[in-house]
Amino acid sequence: MLSFESDYTEGAHPAILEKFIETNMDQQSGYGVDVYSESARKKIAKACGKEDADIYFITGGTQTNQLVIDTMLKPYEGVVAAVTGHVAAHEAGAIEYTGHKVLTVPQYLGKLKASDVKELVDTFYNDANHEHMVFPGMVYISHPTEYGTLYTKEELKEISDVCHAYNLPLFLDGARLGYGLMSYDTDVILEDIAELTDVFYIGGTKVGALCGEAVVFTKNNTPAHFVNLIKKHGALLAKGRLNGVQFDVLFTDDLYFKISRHAIDMAEKLKTIFKEKGYEFYIDSPTNQQFFIVDNKKLEELEKHVRYGFWEKYDDTHTVVRFATSWATTEESIEKLKELL
Amino acid sequence: MLSFESDYTEGAHPAILEKFIETNMDQQSGYGVDVYSESARKKIAKACGKEDADIYFITGGTQTNQLVIDTMLKPYEGVVAAVTGHVAAHEAGAIEYTGHKVLTVPQYLGKLKASDVKELVDTFYNDANHEHMVFPGMVYISHPTEYGTLYTKEELKEISDVCHAYNLPLFLDGARLGYGLMSYDTDVILEDIAELTDVFYIGGTKVGALCGEAVVFTKNNTPAHFVNLIKKHGALLAKGRLNGVQFDVLFTDDLYFKISRHAIDMAEKLKTIFKEKGYEFYIDSPTNQQFFIVDNKKLEELEKHVRYGFWEKYDDTHTVVRFATSWATTEESIEKLKELL
Amino acid sequence: MLSFESDYTEGAHPAILEKFIETNMDQQSGYGVDVYSESARKKIAKACGKEDADIYFITGGTQTNQLVIDTMLKPYEGVVAAVTGHVAAHEAGAIEYTGHKVLTVPQYLGKLKASDVKELVDTFYNDANHEHMVFPGMVYISHPTEYGTLYTKEELKEISDVCHAYNLPLFLDGARLGYGLMSYDTDVILEDIAELTDVFYIGGTKVGALCGEAVVFTKNNTPAHFVNLIKKHGALLAKGRLNGVQFDVLFTDDLYFKISRHAIDMAEKLKTIFKEKGYEFYIDSPTNQQFFIVDNKKLEELEKHVRYGFWEKYDDTHTVVRFATSWATTEESIEKLKELL
Amino acid sequence: MLSFESDYTEGAHPAILEKFIETNMDQQSGYGVDVYSESARKKIAKACGKEDADIYFITGGTQTNQLVIDTMLKPYEGVVAAVTGHVAAHEAGAIEYTGHKVLTVPQYLGKLKASDVKELVDTFYNDANHEHMVFPGMVYISHPTEYGTLYTKEELKEISDVCHAYNLPLFLDGARLGYGLMSYDTDVILEDIAELTDVFYIGGTKVGALCGEAVVFTKNNTPAHFVNLIKKHGALLAKGRLNGVQFDVLFTDDLYFKISRHAIDMAEKLKTIFKEKGYEFYIDSPTNQQFFIVDNKKLEELEKHVRYGFWEKYDDTHTVVRFATSWATTEESIEKLKELL
Repeated sequence: MLSFESDYTEGAHPAILEKFIETNMDQQSGYGVDVYSESARKKIAKACGKEDADIYFITGGTQTNQLVIDTMLKPYEGVVAAVTGHVAAHEAGAIEYTGHKVLTVPQYLGKLKASDVKELVDTFYNDANHEHMVFPGMVYISHPTEYGTLYTKEELKEISDVCHAYNLPLFLDGARLGYGLMSYDTDVILEDIAELTDVFYIGGTKVGALCGEAVVFTKNNTPAHFVNLIKKHGALLAKGRLNGVQFDVLFTDDLYFKISRHAIDMAEKLKTIFKEKGYEFYIDSPTNQQFFIVDNKKLEELEKHVRYGFWEKYDDTHTVVRFATSWATTEESIEKLKELL
Repeated sequence: MLSFESDYTEGAHPAILEKFIETNMDQQSGYGVDVYSESARKKIAKACGKEDADIYFITGGTQTNQLVIDTMLKPYEGVVAAVTGHVAAHEAGAIEYTGHKVLTVPQYLGKLKASDVKELVDTFYNDANHEHMVFPGMVYISHPTEYGTLYTKEELKEISDVCHAYNLPLFLDGARLGYGLMSYDTDVILEDIAELTDVFYIGGTKVGALCGEAVVFTKNNTPAHFVNLIKKHGALLAKGRLNGVQFDVLFTDDLYFKISRHAIDMAEKLKTIFKEKGYEFYIDSPTNQQFFIVDNKKLEELEKHVRYGFWEKYDDTHTVVRFATSWATTEESIEKLKELL
Repeated sequence: MLSFESDYTEGAHPAILEKFIETNMDQQSGYGVDVYSESARKKIAKACGKEDADIYFITGGTQTNQLVIDTMLKPYEGVVAAVTGHVAAHEAGAIEYTGHKVLTVPQYLGKLKASDVKELVDTFYNDANHEHMVFPGMVYISHPTEYGTLYTKEELKEISDVCHAYNLPLFLDGARLGYGLMSYDTDVILEDIAELTDVFYIGGTKVGALCGEAVVFTKNNTPAHFVNLIKKHGALLAKGRLNGVQFDVLFTDDLYFKISRHAIDMAEKLKTIFKEKGYEFYIDSPTNQQFFIVDNKKLEELEKHVRYGFWEKYDDTHTVVRFATSWATTEESIEKLKELL
Repeated sequence: MLSFESDYTEGAHPAILEKFIETNMDQQSGYGVDVYSESARKKIAKACGKEDADIYFITGGTQTNQLVIDTMLKPYEGVVAAVTGHVAAHEAGAIEYTGHKVLTVPQYLGKLKASDVKELVDTFYNDANHEHMVFPGMVYISHPTEYGTLYTKEELKEISDVCHAYNLPLFLDGARLGYGLMSYDTDVILEDIAELTDVFYIGGTKVGALCGEAVVFTKNNTPAHFVNLIKKHGALLAKGRLNGVQFDVLFTDDLYFKISRHAIDMAEKLKTIFKEKGYEFYIDSPTNQQFFIVDNKKLEELEKHVRYGFWEKYDDTHTVVRFATSWATTEESIEKLKELL
């Protein structure tokens, strides 16, 4: 059975597994002070163009969002996100579990607009009752978004400007950051993100690692006693090397970028095939997630041979489905899919 | 540099790494429904003698304690633990972060006594003001304890009986369970634990895995929508195979037990050497953690060549130190240590 | 200075103060077991037509909403409310503070629709990813709403039916319940509310008391150890008599209803005057809160002589303002206002 | 039936009720900006010798403890208290509900010792693993304590010095502060408390009010947006006048101190009688709570005529009971009790 179900259906990039074997018997201290974590931190900081960035490895995306948002917000604050933002809709209330509200703004193909953030904040402070409401305390965006779309550098700058005009940290969820940076259709590079945001993370789980996200604090703004807070959240690994080794490999010889580019190449091939076969695109995504509107009868047939993501009902006879490529997608599988469509 | 610092200084048992490579490109769905997790669950259930046990894989120990305790307790309840229990002392307030109090009873070489639990509960219900206090809602024990000690089967049975007489679930933290089960000096087997507790976990991180703990609900008592609650806690891995593969390997051909026994064999050799060299034992531990009282001058010399854990000040001229063995400890390193002592 | 700023600008109905004096030196036990609380509970249960209703007195509205929602929801659930619902917008994140999300549906003059609740729940369960989202766990409505509007009996019944079809408790916030029940334009009586909801509260603070809300559990569905949970929330009064005496007076000889009717009579007079003077109504409210669209220049003049609530900007030259009557509003003040308009 | 059950068995001091009547129809804005609250704040600040003290009125003691501790602590911190401290034992886990641990030190007649606090903090920072533990973040004491005992000025100074040496705010729970300040046997005055602590509260509920505690921040150290945080905790009263009027009366013409002294006078009479009758004192308390060891047979007889607090079992034939006096205790009731003993 073919699968384009998600970008986390395989294990890890082989170079990571090799490094696990190579380093396996080295004795290292726990909790993130091992030499691999240290090395990975340096390489990532360099790639970001921020030698003094403060970097922590967390195991998964929801955990990272929960931890960063909870520890960056003050008790009277909530986080601003698009209504379709992962933290607003698909994390089982993980943010609210920490006692903070998610304040939503409209989404445009999964993205939020600087002007909407500005309006939300202005409206808040103009409301005579605002002391009885949740203060907007930071802004959350994802890049790529949940719909695979990307902010332009200009859009990011506008959002960053609004945030900083109001002293709101800007947090970028980069669960699929590699696929965004390596898109054919982006003018945003890693250094831009490090410059324009206050904290962001580089996703590993969906970009070649077995697990792991690298949180980057870019402005000497790490919350006090952050290791303690990671522990309090239940998120501190004893064997910190698990994440350290993986990110050390991913940030050696640009592996992270190379494998991300491969996924983009595969996604572009996929798009071409769907276009040729006359399928309708739900969204024109420039990254590794592609959304198509497919006739339900066709789906009945397809699902015997290939797995994909069911996104939402489009109308009574059509469904929006997601096909995702990844670092692990082969040309061969794309060819097979072509025959099935 | 030799290291007996902890049982999590190396990577994973080689068989696990091999299996990662072997299964790497298999496409599997995420969030724990992969075939490896499924296989691991069946093998563990069988090893527990409870075919209908409900099993979940969580990444780390603090996370597991936090999750199990929070989801098993009712809002008006707290968890009873020994004052030295990991959840009482060394988890950065992770339990209180979930809104629950840790109610402490005395420790005896790291263990709690059934009679003390009974007295705490009786005192609570006899207090006319108990509606203004935290209800005892479950009992937490660790086996081995934080001091490496073990409950006897009779002690476990007594605690289990008290718990069940008061409708308190009994939760056993088995972060180092393998080392407990394979001790030369125990009458407790895995089936006993599955029988006497309501929920427990089998530690992977400290017993041969890169990460992972297998939570076993033994009485058809899994909290409703547990997967949702794992997600809400930020603890749900996208690539569930990471834990699944590891536990599948550990529970194939008794690997978990064999490597645990190796650690015990190494610990016994260590004990013999320390005894022969005239060192004083702080506690007579039957598992892989050994605690010695060492002269500070000797330590100054030792620490040039070997790493170990600093436990606590003993007196002005002596310190309690911990030497831990593991599945990865070699006879060669024991021999080298012997020369240094 | 005249004031129509809110319905909580005066102290308490004089009969309450008299009763405070009359009962002052009676020695009563604390925490709600005093004879006045007991008497009040019986009278309220009778007025609700539910002799077995379980009743608790809480000091304020936000506290009541926070307590009821937190203790009625399961950990994986959130509360459904209109986007304008008090718990969604104006309680400083008090619900999220308890770890629960507010799931919003559209508002129609402050009310939510049964069909929107049904759609939200259906959409949720039809989403293949719903285990990764917050379960709808109860429905919150306010009656009157934040805009002074009222549900019809039919509308309440529809909402109640949807709730019970999906096993969702229906919670009615009655902070201004008296003003709703005594409206000229309602077919809903207290017994209906007790019948159709699972839990609701009868507001005292805004209807003649110094403080206090009476929470009524109508279906033998009080959360276990509710007094403990009140205490845990910091909401348990030592002198329970403070709330008990007040509600005992309010529910003696229909005082609660009589004073509510007075406020409605005053509101109707107010409406007539504004209509006669040619003001535009923002909403046609049948209760004690009236919303008008007023020219900003007129407001500048008015605010020298009278206080009212600023609701929101209407356009560049007009503002929506709120005038509230209460049990304490005098005909004299209405006449004075007439002169100013 | 006579009652010495507690100091909250009656309503309010008559002067408070008179003031309620006198001010009842004044129209005042809500949420604590009324003229009575404003006046009360000024009078209290003056009584404290701190004109710039920042003062808030909260309805009850547990709520105040929960709010102050939660908002003063940082996320990685817990509060240090005596094992018998109210927050440690008798508040249904209200502190843990906010996510913070209570770190306990030994009690000596209900008091904690500066040296024990110092040792706890030193031990914490000397522990190599302290990043995995809860940081001591503030110190909580009660004055009078739960056993009616009082700190001397010297003891308070020592505690204050230790706290400030380690940058720990010192929080004094003054639920019964009046009875402490007016004891025959104290050298501590209100100005001392304002000087030596960082935040404390002046109890109203147990000292003549129907409800209310005045929180005093003494060092320009009020948490940011404190009104928002009060609301988020569900603790903000709409009719702030309820607390404002009461404290305004209590701090006019030294009423708070006079009625507290009356309670002390009555307690001293009580002590004399018990002493004359040959009863054994459990603790030599200098305030309004008195603890006696009474034969169970005598108690059987007594409880037909008088109510008191059951404290704890002393031995198989004796019980520790508490007799409390208050502002409302009459000489007549003391005389009646004398006949019964």
